[in-house]
Amino acid sequence: MKKIAILGSTGSIGTQTLDVAANEPERYQITGLAAGSNVDVLVEQAKQFQPQIVSLATKEAAEQASLALPASIKVVYGEEGLLEVAAATDADVVVTGIVGSRGLPATLAAIDAGKTIALANKETLVTAGHIVMERAARKGVAILPVDSEHSAIFQCLNGEDKSAIHRITLTASGGSFRDKTRAELEGVTVSQALNHPNWSMGAKVTIDSATMANKGLEVIEAHWLFNMSYDQVDVLIHPESIVHSFVEFNDYSVIAQMGLPDMRVPIQYALTYPERRPSPAGRMNLASIGRLNFREMDLERYPCLKYAYESGRAGASVPTVFNAANEVAVARFLQGEISFLGIEKVIETVLDKHSAVPVNDLAAIAEADAWARRTAANV
Amino acid sequence: MKKIAILGSTGSIGTQTLDVAANEPERYQITGLAAGSNVDVLVEQAKQFQPQIVSLATKEAAEQASLALPASIKVVYGEEGLLEVAAATDADVVVTGIVGSRGLPATLAAIDAGKTIALANKETLVTAGHIVMERAARKGVAILPVDSEHSAIFQCLNGEDKSAIHRITLTASGGSFRDKTRAELEGVTVSQALNHPNWSMGAKVTIDSATMANKGLEVIEAHWLFNMSYDQVDVLIHPESIVHSFVEFNDYSVIAQMGLPDMRVPIQYALTYPERRPSPAGRMNLASIGRLNFREMDLERYPCLKYAYESGRAGASVPTVFNAANEVAVARFLQGEISFLGIEKVIETVLDKHSAVPVNDLAAIAEADAWARRTAANV
Repeated sequence: MKKIAILGSTGSIGTQTLDVAANEPERYQITGLAAGSNVDVLVEQAKQFQPQIVSLATKEAAEQASLALPASIKVVYGEEGLLEVAAATDADVVVTGIVGSRGLPATLAAIDAGKTIALANKETLVTAGHIVMERAARKGVAILPVDSEHSAIFQCLNGEDKSAIHRITLTASGGSFRDKTRAELEGVTVSQALNHPNWSMGAKVTIDSATMANKGLEVIEAHWLFNMSYDQVDVLIHPESIVHSFVEFNDYSVIAQMGLPDMRVPIQYALTYPERRPSPAGRMNLASIGRLNFREMDLERYPCLKYAYESGRAGASVPTVFNAANEVAVARFLQGEISFLGIEKVIETVLDKHSAVPVNDLAAIAEADAWARRTAANV
Repeated sequence: MKKIAILGSTGSIGTQTLDVAANEPERYQITGLAAGSNVDVLVEQAKQFQPQIVSLATKEAAEQASLALPASIKVVYGEEGLLEVAAATDADVVVTGIVGSRGLPATLAAIDAGKTIALANKETLVTAGHIVMERAARKGVAILPVDSEHSAIFQCLNGEDKSAIHRITLTASGGSFRDKTRAELEGVTVSQALNHPNWSMGAKVTIDSATMANKGLEVIEAHWLFNMSYDQVDVLIHPESIVHSFVEFNDYSVIAQMGLPDMRVPIQYALTYPERRPSPAGRMNLASIGRLNFREMDLERYPCLKYAYESGRAGASVPTVFNAANEVAVARFLQGEISFLGIEKVIETVLDKHSAVPVNDLAAIAEADAWARRTAANV
């Protein structure tokens, strides 16, 4: 019986994690669920999976949930509630399905409590990879990737000699606008941007896929997760999202992980690793897919990816600033404040204004993050 | 320092094995070389790699080689000479690059002598998989595949739980005539058949690729090597030969091994396993390849593959008869005696005439083999 706490249980990763758990209910016990403001869905989840504790973003939301739930389920809220779900249950694994930089303190709390991390929160490693990986190593805690690309790399490295890795390649579908030129991107709308061709994901990640900022965050994440230099992390356009990523070894043998685009496969792998279990996902049939396409990534077409590489290489506060500027820019785009191409302009402007500073603790990261958000809000 | 004996050193696998050894000469020592009648090439190889012993097919060839080689290199010949190279040197690994059923006794002798087998001789497992795998297990000897498809599967299984395998898929380029209909195969010539689109291989294997008998032998081999039922071994047409084969696990995650078609990669892997070493092969660039195609295997288009599955499932003497009938039929085609489509007719006729018998030892296998050869010669 694997005991699981989920941060961000009503989001895309959270609901699919529960879908995996429901597929073999005798193998999983949900110990805690943390959500934001989606009280109705959280209450449904809590009724079905009977966690010890649930958390919501605000006191009001928590009070509302309390009325609907049996007294046996503890209801907490806010940053403190999130930390309690992350660290204070008897979970073996904490799934960090929360989006954005709020995921960081909770992930660290879970590491300190000795929980295995099923990492779906990209910002954790992007802003604090140096702190998180060091802390996890010291605590002997495994960081298992949930993201399809990093799970792919992780699976490809099974039983392999890490010193023989030549480079890793993250595949990118190209997002909702992959067939548009830069000129055609001028007038695109929010609803067009939210229409991802292959993956069903949250709004933030879908927009990040269209700008390739998402792939940029994944590059930085891969740098930390697999201890690769930025020169060893490639990105390749692969519209079908069937080859989820691959590793090239020093003998030029390439190991790739493939499958239909279904997040439940990498989510489940993080929960069952090193075992594999029958999955609720569908089988890939390459003959019926017929054809897989690949093309070179173009950093001029996708400047957000270029900024991510530059930020990763610069290190210190720069990846935090990249990430925060992107979060604000995407929010402003979703609210209709700026255009789609405005997203990259906001990021570029904020990075240009920034002077890198060391970020040796969460306070310094928070300060860089807050500065970037303020600056990005006013570009 | 890895010590290596090569059976079939002047053939395609043998010369590429020596190419791998020459790439890092400080890591390999060649202890023995066995060839057929190609004295000049064997003498060159022996001068370069200074083995303890070399063997040729006949006394005459051996005498000729003796004149050209220093007295420090022992020269032997015939079946006995082959066994001496296989078993009597201090090799760690024996590369069985010999084509045809002559490879079997030598492989067994190497297993009995405790040598790791780098297996490139398909017929060994096809005719005697039950004997060879049992003997290797008893002796604690590893059978490492050299064939690109089986090496791919072997690499994909690194660090994986074998009980979680759902099925394995061997890819097939489709051979020299993959774009021809059956009607168009009527008049094809030997030189057309020898023109393989992707791989540079010996004549027998190239013809077997065009008829798909080669893939049939590989299916039977995979059955033994990976302990898979025939229902778990699929074949898929993949014209580019970039995805060398793949494994589907019970979570529907697929691990594939890829690379440019270059036999030196799987050969080297069998020599360096579990390590990987820099390879003389070239890097795969998926963006410049651009597109990978896959299509369903059609057993009506390729009846030799259908006969192989049927033979494998029937077991006992039937795979031996399939293999021997195919060897004779291919030889007759290469000699201009029968047409290309005559190959499958010979195999079909011989299998129709055959009544399966148990083959519990090499004598019984040899008897079934001889019967099939006699019969195939007269169809």
